[in-house]
Amino acid sequence: MDPHDLVVVTGRRLQRVEEVLDGWFEVAAARGERFGSHHAHLIENLRRNTDGGKRFRPRMVLTAFETLGGTDLEVAARVAAAYELLHTALIVHDDVIDRDFVRRGRPNVSGSYRDRATTAGISLPLAEHRGMSVAVIAGDLALAGAYRLVDGCGADELTRGRLVELLDDAVSAAAAGEFADVDFSTHATMPSVDEVVEMERLKTAWYSFEAPLQAGAVVAGAGLATIDALGRFGRNIGIAYQIVDDVLGVFGEEDVTGKSSIGDLREGKRTVLIAYAATQPEWVDVHRLFGDPGLDTVGAARLRDALVTSGARDYAERLATDFANRAWEALAEDSVPASTRDELAPVVRAVLERTK
Amino acid sequence: MDPHDLVVVTGRRLQRVEEVLDGWFEVAAARGERFGSHHAHLIENLRRNTDGGKRFRPRMVLTAFETLGGTDLEVAARVAAAYELLHTALIVHDDVIDRDFVRRGRPNVSGSYRDRATTAGISLPLAEHRGMSVAVIAGDLALAGAYRLVDGCGADELTRGRLVELLDDAVSAAAAGEFADVDFSTHATMPSVDEVVEMERLKTAWYSFEAPLQAGAVVAGAGLATIDALGRFGRNIGIAYQIVDDVLGVFGEEDVTGKSSIGDLREGKRTVLIAYAATQPEWVDVHRLFGDPGLDTVGAARLRDALVTSGARDYAERLATDFANRAWEALAEDSVPASTRDELAPVVRAVLERTK
Repeated sequence: MDPHDLVVVTGRRLQRVEEVLDGWFEVAAARGERFGSHHAHLIENLRRNTDGGKRFRPRMVLTAFETLGGTDLEVAARVAAAYELLHTALIVHDDVIDRDFVRRGRPNVSGSYRDRATTAGISLPLAEHRGMSVAVIAGDLALAGAYRLVDGCGADELTRGRLVELLDDAVSAAAAGEFADVDFSTHATMPSVDEVVEMERLKTAWYSFEAPLQAGAVVAGAGLATIDALGRFGRNIGIAYQIVDDVLGVFGEEDVTGKSSIGDLREGKRTVLIAYAATQPEWVDVHRLFGDPGLDTVGAARLRDALVTSGARDYAERLATDFANRAWEALAEDSVPASTRDELAPVVRAVLERTK
Repeated sequence: MDPHDLVVVTGRRLQRVEEVLDGWFEVAAARGERFGSHHAHLIENLRRNTDGGKRFRPRMVLTAFETLGGTDLEVAARVAAAYELLHTALIVHDDVIDRDFVRRGRPNVSGSYRDRATTAGISLPLAEHRGMSVAVIAGDLALAGAYRLVDGCGADELTRGRLVELLDDAVSAAAAGEFADVDFSTHATMPSVDEVVEMERLKTAWYSFEAPLQAGAVVAGAGLATIDALGRFGRNIGIAYQIVDDVLGVFGEEDVTGKSSIGDLREGKRTVLIAYAATQPEWVDVHRLFGDPGLDTVGAARLRDALVTSGARDYAERLATDFANRAWEALAEDSVPASTRDELAPVVRAVLERTK
C-alpha cells in the first residue's frame, strides 16, 4: 500500500520527524565505526529506502498527538519516526516475500545488491538470492531501530510501556497478516471475504492506521475512550483503504495509479474482489486464467468482465463504503474532540472518493 | 555455530530461563486470539525451533550474573531469555540466507512450511520460496520478542537503558557480520585473514559471548572495568571458538562433529583457513576445486592436503590458541573476581581442547 493520496493536514510538525529520522541514520552510521563498513553499507541502503516516503504513519501519530493537545513533541516525533522505520522494515521484508527488486521505480535493497552481485559475475538466480539475503538483514536492522526509538522516546515509564505494547502488537499483527497472505496464495482453495478482510486488517491497517493513531493519542495523554475510538477509526478506514486499493489494482487507470492493472491478476492475489467472485457462477468459466503467469490483456479483460458481471466489483466498493462509514461512526463518538475529527475527516473522504 | 560442547557450570538457575521462555511463548500464543490462527502457527513454529537448544547464551548471561553477586534473578532470567530469542531470530534468518531447510536433523521453519506447500501441490522452487518467506516473518517475531523481553525485564531505568544498548549493539554487529559473510561469498577475491576474523567476531562472537556476558554483569551491577574485561574475554574466546569450528568443519571426524566435512569446501565458505591458504603457492593448483558444487571426496582430499601443506591448518590452530590466550588474559585481570574466572575457565579449556 502506498497511501500517498491521503493528505492529512498535520504537516507543520513533520519536520521534526524528519530530523529524528536523519538523526537515527546518522547515529547508526557513526556507530558503523564499531561495526565496520558492512554496517555502514546496510544503513546507507536503508536510508535510501526510507527517504522520499510520504510519511503516512508519522502523519497519523502527529495528527492524533496534536489534535488531542499533546505537548511533548520530542516524544511524539520519536514515536512517529519509529513507525516509519517499522514501515521500512516491513516493506523491505515484504519485497523479499514478493520477490520484488524495484520500489518506486528504483532498485530496492534486494535490487541494488542483486545488481552488485551480477556485476561481480554471479549468476542471476544466485544474485537474486544474495540480494534478498541482504534485504532480510537490512529489514532486521530497521525493525530493531523501531524498538530502539520507542524505547528511547523519553516518555515516562508508564507511557513508554504502553507505547512498546502498541508497537509490539503492530509487529505481531503485521507478521500474522503477512503470513496469512503467503498462506492464502499457497492453497488452491479461495479464502472467504471475511478472511481476506482480516488478513488486510492485520497486514496493513493495524500498523499503518490503528497503532500510529493510538500511539499519538497515548503520547498526548488521551483517555481510554478516545484511544479506543481512534483505534476503531484506524482499523475501519485502513480496511476500507485496502479494499479500494485492491479494486484499483485491477480496474484502476495505469497512468493514474502508476501500477500495472494486470499484475494482481497474474499473481493470483487474493483480494476481497476475488474472494467474492469465486463464490459466484460467473467465475467458473474464467477461474483458470486467474493466477496464470502467462495471462495476457485479452485474458485480463475476460477476468475483469467476470468481476463486473458477477457483482464482485460492486460488492467490494460497497464493502469499502461500509468500512468507511464505520470509521465515520468511530470519529463521531463523544470522546473524539472536534479538532481530531476535522483533521481526520479528509482521510475518510479521500478513501470514499477513490471508490468512484 | 552450535557450542554444545562448551559446558558452563551455571546450570542451577537455568530453569528460571526456561520458565521465562515458556511464559513468553504462552503469552504470545494467548495473544494469538487477537491476531488469529496464523499468528498462533508462527509462534508454535518458533517455539519448536527454540526448544531443545543448549541455551548457551543464557548460560553466559547467568554465569556473569551469578558469579558477580547478582541478586535479581528475575531480571537476569528475562535478559537471558531475550538472548535466546535473539539467537532463534538470527538462526531462522541465517537459514533463509543459507537456503537451509533442516536444522538439528528436523525441518526448520522454512522446511516445515515448504513441506506444507508441496503437500498443497505447489512446485518445489516456489514452495521453497514460500518456506523462506515464512521464516523471514517468524524471525521478525523472535527479534521483536528479544527487545520486548529486555524492555520488560523489570530493571531500573538506567540499567534497562544499558541492557537495551547492549542488545542493540549485538543486533547491529550480527547484521554487519552476516552481511559481510554474504558479501565475501559474492566476490571472487578472497578476504584477508583479518577480515574473516572481524566478520566472525561480528556475526557470532558478539551476540553469543560478548553481549550476554556483559548483560549479565550489568544486571549484577558490576563495575565498568569488570564489564569491559568480560567483553574482551567474550570477544576473544568467541573468535577462537569460531576458528576452531571452521577447522573442524573441514578436518573434523564427521561422526564426532555430526557435520559433513565436505560441505564448507563445496560451498566455498570463507574461513581463516581458506583466507590464509589463498595467499600460499600450494593453493594455486587446487583453488578451482574450492566452492565447486560438484566437489567429490577425491577433490576434497586434495583441498585438505593443500590446506595442510600450505601451513593453513597450523596457522588457524595457532591463531585460535592466540585468541584463547587473549581470553585468558582478560579473565586474569584484577577486576574479574576469582569466582567468575573459575566458572569461565572451562570455556577456554573446552575451546583449546577442541583444537587438538
